Amino acid sequence: MSELKVRGFSISIDGYGAGPNQSLENPMGEGAGGLHHWFRGTRTFQSMIGNEGKGTDGPDEDFAARGFENVGAWILGRNMFGPVRGPWPDDSWKGWWGDEPPYHVPVFVLTHHPRAPLEMKGGTTFYFVTDGIESAYAQARTAANGKDMRLGGGVATLRQYLQAGLVDEMHLAISPVLLGSGESLFAGLDLNAMGFRCTRHVPTPSATHVVLRKD
Amino acid sequence: MSELKVRGFSISIDGYGAGPNQSLENPMGEGAGGLHHWFRGTRTFQSMIGNEGKGTDGPDEDFAARGFENVGAWILGRNMFGPVRGPWPDDSWKGWWGDEPPYHVPVFVLTHHPRAPLEMKGGTTFYFVTDGIESAYAQARTAANGKDMRLGGGVATLRQYLQAGLVDEMHLAISPVLLGSGESLFAGLDLNAMGFRCTRHVPTPSATHVVLRKD
Repeated sequence: MSELKVRGFSISIDGYGAGPNQSLENPMGEGAGGLHHWFRGTRTFQSMIGNEGKGTDGPDEDFAARGFENVGAWILGRNMFGPVRGPWPDDSWKGWWGDEPPYHVPVFVLTHHPRAPLEMKGGTTFYFVTDGIESAYAQARTAANGKDMRLGGGVATLRQYLQAGLVDEMHLAISPVLLGSGESLFAGLDLNAMGFRCTRHVPTPSATHVVLRKD
Repeated sequence: MSELKVRGFSISIDGYGAGPNQSLENPMGEGAGGLHHWFRGTRTFQSMIGNEGKGTDGPDEDFAARGFENVGAWILGRNMFGPVRGPWPDDSWKGWWGDEPPYHVPVFVLTHHPRAPLEMKGGTTFYFVTDGIESAYAQARTAANGKDMRLGGGVATLRQYLQAGLVDEMHLAISPVLLGSGESLFAGLDLNAMGFRCTRHVPTPSATHVVLRKD
């Protein structure tokens, strides 16, 4: 059955998924570079940036690779496609990843700016959804055709899907950094009341991986 | 130099130091038993409850044991001495630990109920401080006589000391449980702005240990 899954979502010790003062130079906010340290070292990420054969194996890599398995469609918040303050919604902006993004499936981008679908190399097509998260969910589910949907973030988008009760599973990576402020994943959200439980706990020197699933 | 240190303070994945609906039966709140799983297995804790020679070695034990090293005085919030809803402030209540508590030094209990000092076996004397956290800090510092002060919690007490800028170092243990609600350690506190950085990160199968120190 098709599920909506969050994969490799990095948070700080104090529960922030993005730091303060996000900008074009610092799209994840100040101090947030360390959030993704565990991911940048993996074979999966290294091959995404053209370094085939580089990167590490082990639990970090296992989680990174699993994030791309059985994914039939992605859903992204607007900032995962374009910068908060930047050239988009100018149509010359084609996302963060260049001509061949690492999705290779339909990607549904939540936005208030209508735009024609954008077909990229390697099987990725960006669809711009202006009528809300449930619509993006329904479109992604159809496109996924029985496979899972991966929800890519950011924090505000993830929180909206959690509040709507549409997220089935989350893999979070707690990174050994403090952010102090920014976008809190947990503030005001009662994950227990939503039915989530911690079903896996895999600590590594780079991060603590936890999987939260609904009962 | 005498510092105020938090040791072995357990929090959930979602940043809660205590769960919802605290009671005499459930002094840490619902679902919070798992917070201290990493600690209960250690040699240090087992010897505290009379099981000398039992318990595990390893990083969990190292952190547990370090929590009692060079401690010249403790500061406790009221609920660390007595139950939220229970027999205290009746003077027959002598704390959670029986006749010989595991502190073995002066312990300063924050409360609104004046009470004469309570001398226990094994070197522990409870002093009841009714004139605020700075007063308890000053008294503990004098009593510690150059050793460190350990701040035992709970969450509200720790947050008060953080906000007052009096905490020098914290060892937190992030346990693989979700609480969903209760007492959040981080909500509204900008630890970065306070000068804290993550200086150690030691994950174990039971918890992720992080040490946060001021610059």
